[in-house]
Amino acid sequence: MITTSPLAFARSLAAVAAASLLCGAATPGPAPGQPRYDADGRMLFPADYREWVFLSSGLNMSYAPGPAAAGADMFDNTFVPLAAYRAFLATGVWPDKTVILLENRGGTSQGSINKHGQFQTTAYMGAEAHVKDTARFKGGWGFFGFDTDGKPASEIPHQAVCYACHEQHAAADTTFVQFYPTLLPVATARGTLSQAYLAETAAAAPAPAR
Amino acid sequence: MITTSPLAFARSLAAVAAASLLCGAATPGPAPGQPRYDADGRMLFPADYREWVFLSSGLNMSYAPGPAAAGADMFDNTFVPLAAYRAFLATGVWPDKTVILLENRGGTSQGSINKHGQFQTTAYMGAEAHVKDTARFKGGWGFFGFDTDGKPASEIPHQAVCYACHEQHAAADTTFVQFYPTLLPVATARGTLSQAYLAETAAAAPAPAR
Repeated sequence: MITTSPLAFARSLAAVAAASLLCGAATPGPAPGQPRYDADGRMLFPADYREWVFLSSGLNMSYAPGPAAAGADMFDNTFVPLAAYRAFLATGVWPDKTVILLENRGGTSQGSINKHGQFQTTAYMGAEAHVKDTARFKGGWGFFGFDTDGKPASEIPHQAVCYACHEQHAAADTTFVQFYPTLLPVATARGTLSQAYLAETAAAAPAPAR
Repeated sequence: MITTSPLAFARSLAAVAAASLLCGAATPGPAPGQPRYDADGRMLFPADYREWVFLSSGLNMSYAPGPAAAGADMFDNTFVPLAAYRAFLATGVWPDKTVILLENRGGTSQGSINKHGQFQTTAYMGAEAHVKDTARFKGGWGFFGFDTDGKPASEIPHQAVCYACHEQHAAADTTFVQFYPTLLPVATARGTLSQAYLAETAAAAPAPAR
């Protein structure tokens, strides 16, 4: 399943890093970190995302009730470009052209001197993007799933469950800010928490003492 | 134990971000991301580390044999300044004045729509720094532990177990690159894996078939 070698991956990062040093050069097209699409409307994989700002990670997270899925352990790491991160700190919402990139990566407890708990491995298992592009997507946001080959991805149709789930449960701006520890206090202070999230949080809170 | 409010933390990040926009101004002292010390040699807490490059995270990791410790779940998130990260990609070792910052943060499975697995919470539980400063530290590296108040920290004495453990087990340049998925292939390709790590890895590998 892992078709990109870790070294090739590291080399592509280095190439992107070198290219982005040309900050004074005139570069047509979107600013660094903004979404790019091919002629067929497929999103190009943002190969430099490991240099973006880290929002959080989870291990074996699932929103599905019932027993936990069996199988390999998996971490998710979420990243956003620096400019979008700073805009959220200032406003509690994402600027247009924000890309939130979720990377799936293997986890293990076996390796080196580790004795307990889990750490992340070199097994890159694909990525998902959530993109704010109000001129392009119905509702302002689109989802994309990238395979491990890093090829461009078509927009996931809006009938998919991810759209409804984010609209119904996301803490701020249809994004799961409740899982981003440095941003949840910002959305709280800026008053940008969604009504749906506030209602869900109130319903889950213990009843006040009489 | 949590004495810094998440919002104050976010505000300090925003202030640091605003200050760093003054890129053309003459700023005496170390470059962004390099270690800073007070007059007593204590290291100042690098308050902007959440905008650094993420290396990896783990959950409840421990190098101690025996039963796992009871108590609250804890993630560790590790960050390094962008310039140091790019230097490692190019060379497989860290440049002088590198700061590797490990953040400890609460984990939970209870919250919002999550049903399985663990995610990170707003409970910031302090941080540890591993600093390469060859003119300052015996062996080139120093460790520091920061409490949740973000106050300057004194260097951890070199008799502490962290120094010997890193020298004996770290994969590259006395750092635990074996736990940093995007850097382990770089150190492998650049030939900077430590003899100790190579011996440990060879000893742990299954014997070749005859």
